[in-house]
Amino acid sequence: MTVIRSARRMEALAKRLERRKRRVGVVPTMGCLHEGHLSLIRAARSQNDVVIVTLFVNPLQFGPGEDFARYPRPFARDRALAKAAGTDILFAPTQRELYPRGFQTAVDLGALARRWEGASRAGHFRGVATVVTILFRLTRPTMAYVGQKDYQQALIIQRLARDLRLGLSVRILPTVREPDGLAMSSRNASLTPTQRLQAATLFLALGEARERIRGGERSGAALIEGMRRRIGETEARIDYAAIVDAATLEPVWRLRGRVALLVAARLGRTRLIDNLLVDVS
Amino acid sequence: MTVIRSARRMEALAKRLERRKRRVGVVPTMGCLHEGHLSLIRAARSQNDVVIVTLFVNPLQFGPGEDFARYPRPFARDRALAKAAGTDILFAPTQRELYPRGFQTAVDLGALARRWEGASRAGHFRGVATVVTILFRLTRPTMAYVGQKDYQQALIIQRLARDLRLGLSVRILPTVREPDGLAMSSRNASLTPTQRLQAATLFLALGEARERIRGGERSGAALIEGMRRRIGETEARIDYAAIVDAATLEPVWRLRGRVALLVAARLGRTRLIDNLLVDVS
Repeated sequence: MTVIRSARRMEALAKRLERRKRRVGVVPTMGCLHEGHLSLIRAARSQNDVVIVTLFVNPLQFGPGEDFARYPRPFARDRALAKAAGTDILFAPTQRELYPRGFQTAVDLGALARRWEGASRAGHFRGVATVVTILFRLTRPTMAYVGQKDYQQALIIQRLARDLRLGLSVRILPTVREPDGLAMSSRNASLTPTQRLQAATLFLALGEARERIRGGERSGAALIEGMRRRIGETEARIDYAAIVDAATLEPVWRLRGRVALLVAARLGRTRLIDNLLVDVS
Repeated sequence: MTVIRSARRMEALAKRLERRKRRVGVVPTMGCLHEGHLSLIRAARSQNDVVIVTLFVNPLQFGPGEDFARYPRPFARDRALAKAAGTDILFAPTQRELYPRGFQTAVDLGALARRWEGASRAGHFRGVATVVTILFRLTRPTMAYVGQKDYQQALIIQRLARDLRLGLSVRILPTVREPDGLAMSSRNASLTPTQRLQAATLFLALGEARERIRGGERSGAALIEGMRRRIGETEARIDYAAIVDAATLEPVWRLRGRVALLVAARLGRTRLIDNLLVDVS
């Protein structure tokens, strides 16, 4: 596995791979790799000639009150995990490489970025969309792999790649979960043991709603009420619980088609999100 | 010369040209071609294997009060002029080709886009930056050619191509002028004969300021005052007259380095802009 720090070197290599028509799979990450990331890397490995993992803690996507400085950066561990999962190139640039002096261009999405995480975290998706566009240009993927756990982010990345004609497909792969159902996330490490036990309730609430849909329930309000009640049994404070169209993320009150069940909640200082997709037949 | 309407076809052809390492020169236009555009096309012709002219009246860059619907679209004339100047491919997509259903991504610049034209025309540069990014992705230029007449726009296009790693250089070529100095612009056609005579005063004012700089004047305020006085002798209403750093477009009060002299003024309903670059030694 090669570690590349320079944007120019990454770009030159990506160009050569493109000319040779190599299939390039890219997995964008902020490091702190867990089983969720590794499943993306393994999928990329199985479908491409070359696997590039990008590792960059992107200052643009952290809000003023958020934890950019304290975000963990266990580089040696990430490098070992990426390598073991089949990465060929670990692209880990510095801030100055991606955002040189005078840098001032941003990529911004409309409706998809406004609700849910966009409403809670001002500027967050603008930061994500900007860095992902640059990383895709530098690495020139045939295919990029993102996790369903950050479903809104995944849709945004898919949309911008299409809208800006970046020439790749974005694959959204299933959320990897702990045995009790908690979605893998680097934030889980911040939970106290009690909070960790309670955290699984998010998935429990989502799963119960899915069962009720399968049982015939079609009222968004009733399902949301059920999720809120279940999560309300813990110390978690709900940011939102919603049922939305899986493509547009607009709320759906009478369920039909493909929907996403979304939840975001805080346990102490840790903010968790999770979701499930359901085909309402 | 081939006329291409389909984004997909343009993209496929651009990919093939890229693989064959052809030098591709692109001139983005909104049609209504005049000698200014033709000089860009000829420059592209002399420096590239393939010349692509894009022709698209971009709704995103028109403000609510502006003239998108009434913007002239003399296609047959544009096609003939583009061909005669050496164009290989005229890419003239419809709106739906560039902005398909669900499209919602925008490209936005910071400081460069805020002042001058950005202050007068809300959302204008966002529209320009977005369409240019998409056009560059669809045509994959080695080099793009833009006119110095829209100097702020030219710097913005140069900046976004660099920031988003679009892989091309942007050449800014000199403004082409009428015999009396008026900068070529499709808007000149809207001037009444009296306004047309007065319009040359913009260039006169800029030229006088340049002479005073060459003569040793270093006070931005004095130079701006002179430009305002000269233009004030006509019926033109000044939007702004400014002396700015030629790279950042920030005002310069004590002249040094490379500066741009900028003016924007309205004659009747027609808004004209012009500029000169001066190296202050």
